[in-house]
Amino acid sequence: MTTIADERMIPATVGTTQATMKALVYGGPGQRTWTSKPKPVVRDPGDAVVRITTTTICGTDLHILKGDVPSVTPGRILGHEGIGIVESVGAAVTAFHAGDRVLISCISACGICDLCRRGMYSHCRTGGWILGNTIDGTQAEYVRTPHADTSLYHVPANADEDALVMLSDILPTAFECGVLNGQVQPGDTVAIVGAGPIGLAAVLTAQFYSPSAILMIDLDANRLKVAGDLGATALIDSSDGLAVERVMKLTGGAGVDVAIEAVGVPATFDICQAILAPGGRLANIGVHGKPATLHLEKLWDRNIRITTRLVDTAATPMLLKLVSSGKLQPAKLVTHRFALGDIMKAYDTFGNAAKERALKVILQNG
Amino acid sequence: MTTIADERMIPATVGTTQATMKALVYGGPGQRTWTSKPKPVVRDPGDAVVRITTTTICGTDLHILKGDVPSVTPGRILGHEGIGIVESVGAAVTAFHAGDRVLISCISACGICDLCRRGMYSHCRTGGWILGNTIDGTQAEYVRTPHADTSLYHVPANADEDALVMLSDILPTAFECGVLNGQVQPGDTVAIVGAGPIGLAAVLTAQFYSPSAILMIDLDANRLKVAGDLGATALIDSSDGLAVERVMKLTGGAGVDVAIEAVGVPATFDICQAILAPGGRLANIGVHGKPATLHLEKLWDRNIRITTRLVDTAATPMLLKLVSSGKLQPAKLVTHRFALGDIMKAYDTFGNAAKERALKVILQNG
Amino acid sequence: MTTIADERMIPATVGTTQATMKALVYGGPGQRTWTSKPKPVVRDPGDAVVRITTTTICGTDLHILKGDVPSVTPGRILGHEGIGIVESVGAAVTAFHAGDRVLISCISACGICDLCRRGMYSHCRTGGWILGNTIDGTQAEYVRTPHADTSLYHVPANADEDALVMLSDILPTAFECGVLNGQVQPGDTVAIVGAGPIGLAAVLTAQFYSPSAILMIDLDANRLKVAGDLGATALIDSSDGLAVERVMKLTGGAGVDVAIEAVGVPATFDICQAILAPGGRLANIGVHGKPATLHLEKLWDRNIRITTRLVDTAATPMLLKLVSSGKLQPAKLVTHRFALGDIMKAYDTFGNAAKERALKVILQNG
Amino acid sequence: MTTIADERMIPATVGTTQATMKALVYGGPGQRTWTSKPKPVVRDPGDAVVRITTTTICGTDLHILKGDVPSVTPGRILGHEGIGIVESVGAAVTAFHAGDRVLISCISACGICDLCRRGMYSHCRTGGWILGNTIDGTQAEYVRTPHADTSLYHVPANADEDALVMLSDILPTAFECGVLNGQVQPGDTVAIVGAGPIGLAAVLTAQFYSPSAILMIDLDANRLKVAGDLGATALIDSSDGLAVERVMKLTGGAGVDVAIEAVGVPATFDICQAILAPGGRLANIGVHGKPATLHLEKLWDRNIRITTRLVDTAATPMLLKLVSSGKLQPAKLVTHRFALGDIMKAYDTFGNAAKERALKVILQNG
Repeated sequence: MTTIADERMIPATVGTTQATMKALVYGGPGQRTWTSKPKPVVRDPGDAVVRITTTTICGTDLHILKGDVPSVTPGRILGHEGIGIVESVGAAVTAFHAGDRVLISCISACGICDLCRRGMYSHCRTGGWILGNTIDGTQAEYVRTPHADTSLYHVPANADEDALVMLSDILPTAFECGVLNGQVQPGDTVAIVGAGPIGLAAVLTAQFYSPSAILMIDLDANRLKVAGDLGATALIDSSDGLAVERVMKLTGGAGVDVAIEAVGVPATFDICQAILAPGGRLANIGVHGKPATLHLEKLWDRNIRITTRLVDTAATPMLLKLVSSGKLQPAKLVTHRFALGDIMKAYDTFGNAAKERALKVILQNG
Repeated sequence: MTTIADERMIPATVGTTQATMKALVYGGPGQRTWTSKPKPVVRDPGDAVVRITTTTICGTDLHILKGDVPSVTPGRILGHEGIGIVESVGAAVTAFHAGDRVLISCISACGICDLCRRGMYSHCRTGGWILGNTIDGTQAEYVRTPHADTSLYHVPANADEDALVMLSDILPTAFECGVLNGQVQPGDTVAIVGAGPIGLAAVLTAQFYSPSAILMIDLDANRLKVAGDLGATALIDSSDGLAVERVMKLTGGAGVDVAIEAVGVPATFDICQAILAPGGRLANIGVHGKPATLHLEKLWDRNIRITTRLVDTAATPMLLKLVSSGKLQPAKLVTHRFALGDIMKAYDTFGNAAKERALKVILQNG
Repeated sequence: MTTIADERMIPATVGTTQATMKALVYGGPGQRTWTSKPKPVVRDPGDAVVRITTTTICGTDLHILKGDVPSVTPGRILGHEGIGIVESVGAAVTAFHAGDRVLISCISACGICDLCRRGMYSHCRTGGWILGNTIDGTQAEYVRTPHADTSLYHVPANADEDALVMLSDILPTAFECGVLNGQVQPGDTVAIVGAGPIGLAAVLTAQFYSPSAILMIDLDANRLKVAGDLGATALIDSSDGLAVERVMKLTGGAGVDVAIEAVGVPATFDICQAILAPGGRLANIGVHGKPATLHLEKLWDRNIRITTRLVDTAATPMLLKLVSSGKLQPAKLVTHRFALGDIMKAYDTFGNAAKERALKVILQNG
Repeated sequence: MTTIADERMIPATVGTTQATMKALVYGGPGQRTWTSKPKPVVRDPGDAVVRITTTTICGTDLHILKGDVPSVTPGRILGHEGIGIVESVGAAVTAFHAGDRVLISCISACGICDLCRRGMYSHCRTGGWILGNTIDGTQAEYVRTPHADTSLYHVPANADEDALVMLSDILPTAFECGVLNGQVQPGDTVAIVGAGPIGLAAVLTAQFYSPSAILMIDLDANRLKVAGDLGATALIDSSDGLAVERVMKLTGGAGVDVAIEAVGVPATFDICQAILAPGGRLANIGVHGKPATLHLEKLWDRNIRITTRLVDTAATPMLLKLVSSGKLQPAKLVTHRFALGDIMKAYDTFGNAAKERALKVILQNG
C-alpha cells in the first residue's frame, strides 16, 4: 500500500521558486496568521489542485487553535471544507479535469483499500481526515486534494455555493453519524443534544425520515429558536439541569427512540443515556476529549445501541441530489459572509458564536 | 392494559386447602430451602400450569442468592428455565392443551403490547423476565406460566430434554444478545470474553455465521479447553492482564470485528473496548452491577457500535429447528445431572463451578 | 391451533331471536343489497363486537362484486375498513373494553402463530384478510372482529375519523407493499404506476423517506392532477403508450430506483420492469388476476428485486403517530361523503370513479 | 468518465513487433483455437499485465461458443477466471507490483463511478464483466487487467491455487446472487435448483448461514450425489417432473424459505416460484435467454421477493478469509486437471460434463 506524500517530509527549500498564495496558517496554540505560502502542485498521480472559491470554518478548527488536536503541527494550513475550480490533475485522475467546479469532501479516500471497499472512507488506509490536519487544507487560495477521483464531487450547474459548502462536512456528518447511525424511522421521537451547526444539520437531515417529534436540547435561547425554525418540534432549555426530566415528561415517561449527541462532553452524553427508551439508539457525533461514564448497571437490559462514527461522506452524492431537488436547504445555516482575505475577522466572529449569533460563516474568494 | 396476577398481593391463607408440591424457595440473601409450597393453579385466562420434568440452575440464580437482585423477595420460588408437561390451561389459551410437552421460555410475553409487537418481548408491558423473579419459577414440581400461548413452545417428538432446557435461556441469550447484536458475519474475527455457560453458548451460536476466527478469553484453563472443544480457534488466558496485547498480536494489530462481553464487570468490558477494530461491534451480554468507563476520547471516531439487550427469545423457534436438525448440540454444555429432589446439592456443585468443573447442571423430576 | 368460528358453518336458525341490524350484503356477481341481518355477538373469547361509526368502500369490494374473488360467497356482509365503538368483548380480550373507540384493521391476526411472530400478520394461520371475505365485514351497523387484541387499535382523542379510516387498509397497504418493500431512500427516484387511492397513498407515504423525485404514471388527467397536489414531482400521461420512453427521458436514461405497481394488470407490470435502473426495486401492490411476463432475458444481470405482499398492517401504530403529529394527512384522499344508509348510492359513485372524480368515499353511521 | 481502451478500436498492425503468446481464441459460433496472439501490454495507467498460472473454463464460455453472447466477437481471447503473477503495472496502480501473486476477479471495477461507490461493481461504468467478453481474457499465457487496484486480490501465502481460482467467479456468484440475495438465515429451508458448479457452490456457501435443510433438485444422479457429499440434506431427482410435489411433501406442505435458481430456463424458474413459502425469497443466478411466466395471480399476496444479480465480487475478500481459515474448501469442485496447452482437450471434457462427470477443470501454466 502506497502512502500519501506527507508535506512534513519535504524540505522547505523545495518551494522557493514556486508561485505563492495566501493561506490561513496555524502557528501553535492560539496562533493563526493569514500569510503567504507556496502554491500547491500535483505530487501524486491521484492529486488535483483546486482554486478555492468558497470555504468556511468548522468548530474543529477552533479545537485545533486551542491545541487540542496534536496531529496538527505549526505551519499547517487549516480548513477541510470548500468549493473550487480544478486547476490541474495528476495522471491517474480520470473523473475530473481542469476547469471543473468541484465540492471538496472533508474526507480523502483511496477507494481501493479494505476499509474504503467497506464504505468506511473515514478510515481509509492512506486518507481519512487529512485536509487541514496532516496535510494543508482549504482555507487558502489553492489546495492540493489527494485521491481526487474519490474525494471530489462535480457541482451541479446553477447550484448555490453557500448551500454546497455545507456538504463538505457538517451535513454528511450530522446525517451519517447522527441520523443514519441513529436509525431514525418514520414516527420516531428524536432528541438532539446541542444546537450548534452540527446539531442543526441533524434537525434538517432527521426530517428525511419523518420522525413524529424532534426535541432540541441546548443552553442558548437563540440557537433553540433557530432549531425551531428548522423543524424541531420541542425546544428544551437545559440551563437549569432539568433536561432529562423535561424529556421524560414530554414523552409521557417513555423516553426517546433516538438520542443524538452533538456536543462532545460527558454531561451531554449522560443526558442521552438517561432519556433512551428501551430499544433506543444513542448516536454520538460529538468529538470527545474525555471518557464518559456508561451506566451499564441501568442499561445492560435495555436493548439499546450506542454508535460512534467519523463521517465517511458516503452520503454526499445523495445529499447533492436533495440539494438539487430543493428538498434540503442547508444555506439556512449560514449567518455571516466574508471575503477570504478577511478570514482573520471571520475567525473572531465564529469564535464568539454565542455573542455574534454565528452559525456558519462563508468565505468567498474573488 | 391488564396486569399479571402478582402473587405477593394474594394472602397466604388462599392456598391452605390447595395441593402442595416441593420447591426451591429463596429466603433472603444466602438462604435457600427445598420445601413445600402450594401447587399453583390457573389464575388468568392466558395461564398454563406445567409439571416440570427437567430444569436447571442459572448464574442469575446465584446472583439472587447473594441478594443482588432486589426484585426477588423472600418466599419466591426460583428458576426460569425448564421443560415439562402441561397440566391445565386457562380459557384463553389456544395453542397448548393438557398433556403437551413444552419448553418454558425464561421470558413471558403477551404478544399484544407495543413492545411485543416490535419483537421486544423482554420488555413486554405485562411480562418480560418474571419467572423466578417477580412470580414463582421453575425450580419446583409445578409452575404457573402466564401468557402461555406466546411463552411456551411445543417440544419436537424424540427431542433430547438436556439439549432443549438450554433453550429456555442461555442459548437464546448468547445468540440474540451476543451473536445477533454483534452482527457476526462470515469471515469475521470474533472475540468472546468469558467462558462460562453463556460465553460457551456464544461459541456454539457464533458458528451459525461462519466467522473465520473465534478468540475465547478467560482466566480458567478448564473452561478455555472446553471453548476450544466447542469451536473456539484461539484460547487466551487473561490471568496475567495481557489479554488485549495478545488479541492485538493475533489479529496483526487490526483488532476484532466483534467483541462479546459475557462476564458483566468493568474489567471485561474494558477489554472489549480496547480490542475493537474500526467498524467493530461490542455486544454486551453480561449483567452489570456497576457503571463502566466508556473511552469516548478514543472511540468517538472509530465507527463502533455497542449494544445491550435482555434476551427476547424471539430466536427460540429457530433454535428449536437447529437442535432438531442436529446442527446445534447444546447438551455439550451439561456437566452434571441430579434428581430434582437433590437440588440443594446441585446448587452446591454449581456454586463451586471452577472447582467442580461445572457448566450446566440438569435437574430431573421423575 | 384453534380456528376462527366460520359463520358459514352455523345454521341460519341460530340467529332467529337475535337483534337485527342493517348491512350491505353480497348476493353473487353484480348483486348487492342494504338489508337486515342478525346483529353479531361475541363467539370466541378473543372477539370484540364493534358498532361502526365510519366505514368506506375499497376497490377490492368492486372486484368481489364482479365475482372475481371466489372466497366471498353470497350472503356475506362486505367491508374490511372501519372505525367504531366497542360494544362487547370476549373473556380473553385484555386491551379493549366496551366504550373504547377503535380503528379496525383490514387484517385480523392472532399474534401467536409462527407467521404472526415473524410480523407476517397477513398470513396469520387463523386470520389474515377475513373481514368482508370469509367472515362478515364492516359495511354494517355492527361487526364482530376476531383476535381483537391484535387487530384493533385505540383511536387517539380528537382524531379525525375521515383520516383514520384510511388507516384500516389503503395507507398501510401503500406504505408496506409499495414504499417499505420498495426500500425508498432519501434522494431516490420513485415511479408509481396507477393514481387510484392506493397509488395516491403511495405518493403520500413515499415522502416519509424524502425521495428526490416521484413520477406518477396514469391515464386519467384528474387523478394525475391530484397526484401532483399530493407531492408527485412529475406527471406522466400513459394513454399514448409511451410512458416508458418518457420515464427514461426524464431520468436521463438511467431509469428509476423504485417502481411501484398499483394497478394489477400485465401492462402496468411491464412498464415497471422496463423502467428499473440497475439495482432497482419493483414493489408490486396490485391485485393480479393473470400471470405477467417476466423479462429475465433482460433482467437476470440487472441486480433488481421484485416484491409482492399482502398488507400486514404492522405499520399501523407508526401511521397513527404520524396522523396524530400532523405529518400525514390522509383525509386528502376523501372526495365524497354519505350516510351509511346511503351506501347503495355510495357504491354507484365509487363504481363510476373516473366520471365522478371519486377517490375514497366516507360512510358515516349516526 | 474515461473509457477503457477497447481492443477492437486498435488496428491489428499495432502489435506487429510485440512478443507473442498462446491463447484460446473464439472464432465465431462453434469455433475455438489455441493459437498465437500478441502478448498484452499496459495501455491505461490503471492496468496490470498478469502471467497466468492457473485458469479454468466456465459454463458461460460454452454459451459464448454456441453464439449466445453477441457482445463476444470473433478474435476474442476467452476466459474470465484466473490466478497469476503480475508482470507489469501502469503508473496509477498502487496496490500491486511486479512479482505479486494475484487472483483475477471476473469483474473489473473502477471503484470511482456512482455504481461502484454503491458496491455494484458488476455495473461499473467502465468495467463490469469485460474480461473474455469485450476485452481479451484469461485463457492465455498473459492477460491485461484494467482497473487493477480494484479488480485483483493478493493471494495469501501457501494458498491452494485450485481452491482460489474458484474465487474468480463461481464462489462469489453463488454466494452473492444465490445465498446473500436469498437472505439465507439460520434454521431456513433452502432449495437449490441445478447441481452444476454454480449450484454446488451455492450448497457450499449456503452453509455459511446454517440453514436447517438444503434441498438439491437436479436431473443428474451423479451431480445429486456430489451435492449430498458437499452438504445438501435432501436430493430430489426432477427427471419425472414431480420436483414441486416432492419439495412440498418434504416440507410438510409449507414450501421453502429460499429457492435458488441455478440453471437459467423457464422450467426451473417455474419450480422455484411454485415451492416458495409465504415470505420466501427466490434468488436467481441462472443466465436466462428467454422470458419466464411470473405467476402474479398466485404470488401477489404471498409476501415473496425475487432477485436477480450479476456477481459484484464484493464478497471476494471475505471468501479469501474463509479459504485461508479452512472453513471453505472450494477445491472439492475440481474434477479434472490439464496443462494450459491442452485447453482444447479440456474444453471437450467440460463440454461433455454429464458423461465425463466434470465439474470444474483446472488448467495449469508451467
